[in-house]
Amino acid sequence: MQPIFDFHPASPSSFIQTIPGLGNVTLAQLETWITSPAKGGNGWGDVKPCLFVRVTAKDGVVGWGEAFILPCREKAVAEIIHALARSAGTLKTVSPWAFRDLATQIAAKHRSLDFAAASSALEMALWDICGKVAEKPLCDLLGGDHSRAIPVYGNIWSDTQWDAGSLEKRATDLVTQGYGAVKIHPMLNHSVDEAAGCVTRVRNAIGDDIDLMVDLDSQDDPDAALHIAKLITPERPYWFEEPVDGDDIKALAKIREATGLKVVTGEKQSGLSHFRAVLATGAADILNPDIAGIGGLLDILEVAGLADLQGVKVSPHCWNSMTVAAAAMLHVCASIPNAEMAEIYPEYIDHGATFATTGFCLDEGRAFLSGKPGLGVDIDVSALRRLTDHYHSTCLTMAEVAA
Amino acid sequence: MQPIFDFHPASPSSFIQTIPGLGNVTLAQLETWITSPAKGGNGWGDVKPCLFVRVTAKDGVVGWGEAFILPCREKAVAEIIHALARSAGTLKTVSPWAFRDLATQIAAKHRSLDFAAASSALEMALWDICGKVAEKPLCDLLGGDHSRAIPVYGNIWSDTQWDAGSLEKRATDLVTQGYGAVKIHPMLNHSVDEAAGCVTRVRNAIGDDIDLMVDLDSQDDPDAALHIAKLITPERPYWFEEPVDGDDIKALAKIREATGLKVVTGEKQSGLSHFRAVLATGAADILNPDIAGIGGLLDILEVAGLADLQGVKVSPHCWNSMTVAAAAMLHVCASIPNAEMAEIYPEYIDHGATFATTGFCLDEGRAFLSGKPGLGVDIDVSALRRLTDHYHSTCLTMAEVAA
Repeated sequence: MQPIFDFHPASPSSFIQTIPGLGNVTLAQLETWITSPAKGGNGWGDVKPCLFVRVTAKDGVVGWGEAFILPCREKAVAEIIHALARSAGTLKTVSPWAFRDLATQIAAKHRSLDFAAASSALEMALWDICGKVAEKPLCDLLGGDHSRAIPVYGNIWSDTQWDAGSLEKRATDLVTQGYGAVKIHPMLNHSVDEAAGCVTRVRNAIGDDIDLMVDLDSQDDPDAALHIAKLITPERPYWFEEPVDGDDIKALAKIREATGLKVVTGEKQSGLSHFRAVLATGAADILNPDIAGIGGLLDILEVAGLADLQGVKVSPHCWNSMTVAAAAMLHVCASIPNAEMAEIYPEYIDHGATFATTGFCLDEGRAFLSGKPGLGVDIDVSALRRLTDHYHSTCLTMAEVAA
Repeated sequence: MQPIFDFHPASPSSFIQTIPGLGNVTLAQLETWITSPAKGGNGWGDVKPCLFVRVTAKDGVVGWGEAFILPCREKAVAEIIHALARSAGTLKTVSPWAFRDLATQIAAKHRSLDFAAASSALEMALWDICGKVAEKPLCDLLGGDHSRAIPVYGNIWSDTQWDAGSLEKRATDLVTQGYGAVKIHPMLNHSVDEAAGCVTRVRNAIGDDIDLMVDLDSQDDPDAALHIAKLITPERPYWFEEPVDGDDIKALAKIREATGLKVVTGEKQSGLSHFRAVLATGAADILNPDIAGIGGLLDILEVAGLADLQGVKVSPHCWNSMTVAAAAMLHVCASIPNAEMAEIYPEYIDHGATFATTGFCLDEGRAFLSGKPGLGVDIDVSALRRLTDHYHSTCLTMAEVAA
């Protein structure tokens, strides 16, 4: 593999100096939209609310970001985003490093997924602006290559009460659509034996050439995780995700050793300390922090760098819209040497297409970035507005910040 | 010690049946207030904004709760509280168990300090109502004894740039006021050598009979923690708090083993999985989850029960007002067999007295609960309103919940 991960500028200021004009960009307005829940494509599950951020500079250049959100917290994360933006004039620079320093200081070492999701969204928008000012795709700014094909997998999660038959059908449908890898969640509303049966049934349906990821969605009982691991090992799961809660690093390490399966963890965690601890304990083969929940792209790039030193891969989690956050995920995957398959929620794609041109396309299990500057996502704001039940705007001119 | 921790009802419903009338209490209104930052007492540090919850039942009985909040997240946590309350009719029962089940389901295993702070505040208010309906102090409902003297310590944290002289003066002032134990944060804005010097200076000033806790506030470098541990061991620190980030359980365990000091951790974490992992790794002598941040009193009681099985103590963290949350902390300490000294922020006390009768008093390093029902806190709402820059009310009648 080519050595593409050369994103280690001597200093953030040297990076900024490589982009003529970036130092003069002044932010003027911050807006957030929360979309209403919607029906997913193909009748498989629903699309959860999504939170989009638009930062507009004085000269009119805009940056888009997205935050990972969950029920009862959508407006809360939007509140944090606006509070972060209001809290300091430093946000007026588009340097992601300056913003990260600010967010780190404000967090006061009390990380939290919701706070980290808010900082992720704002920092993502700043990166989008950096790319647009530099007139380069974001991954090219990060030392990557936008022409790289990025392997993806289709996540078959659903909030519906699916049965083994519908799970099998969904898996074969995705394979027919071109996915070369699919992920299932067999323990959702199923016993260990039923879940193992689901894995066997899906494997038989999709054949041996398709990668099959198994996600246990954080079992409370490590013994249940070990039990199903034994039952499903003959089906050659490509990876074994969150067999137990990601906070229980020691239990993850034990399961990894006992099963020999590739353990994946990290989607619910934020900040570097946690991931450092996972790596120090040898608890995972693949880290999957959420692209819009870890705290920012600088965080996931740093985690990827640390992971690479140990031969650990990174597959960004993306339980977000398949527009802004998915584009950020793909730019990161095109920039790091240790990217594992990126996560696609197929049923979210049609919904995203109603208000966004995503800046990437999917073909035969791989994603291709368009080569447009920044994240490469174009949002039809009037279409977004029609899907939105919450809009909030903050003026970021100096006078407003002071007030 | 008397076996007071008998709070293991056969079922939540059996507990509720022991309180005549509790099953008929219907909630009508939820209100939140966020107080503005204020000057602390004695010129030592400021009082941060605090978030109070009042739940009012149809028959007029009210319950008070408080959430742990940090800058940029105050309104966000309030948003989560109102969203949680609106999200389900089940909140209409005052059973803390029913609420906990609801909050657990909504969290979808994605815990977060901000979400946990919101659920803590609501659950605390429900406990207050339980006690008032039962006409018993909360700790008596939990199997404790409200007449028990609860040892406390004074936390000498400050956001000011203190020097060794002012730290020494603050420590001796607190000892003069009657505190038998004080906690200092020597690494804040100080080098390892300066910090060690501060510990020696404070020890010399307060004498050998006062307990001296040392809090490192999560060092990034475990070696720095080990270095200062060696330097300060001759000063006999009573405990050694957060030498590194609480997420790095393995590093905490190593530091505990290497130093022989009593390691304290947990103030920034929420949910049971983390604390189970800390206990399984033998990483702490004392757990200090925040009373208004862990997720609820049921969570801290369960953590205390698990900790007690291993001889680990619990000292609830309370970086909150010294009114509602502090009362909840003291009721918990009076209910569990493994309570360590409870945390008092002395400079917050005068501020709290401007709007609350706290339901406890401090005397010679110990707290005494008043014996009033529930948490025992009375709030002067008109006084609270004068301190508040944010008020929000949600009607919880059936019609509103449906709407």
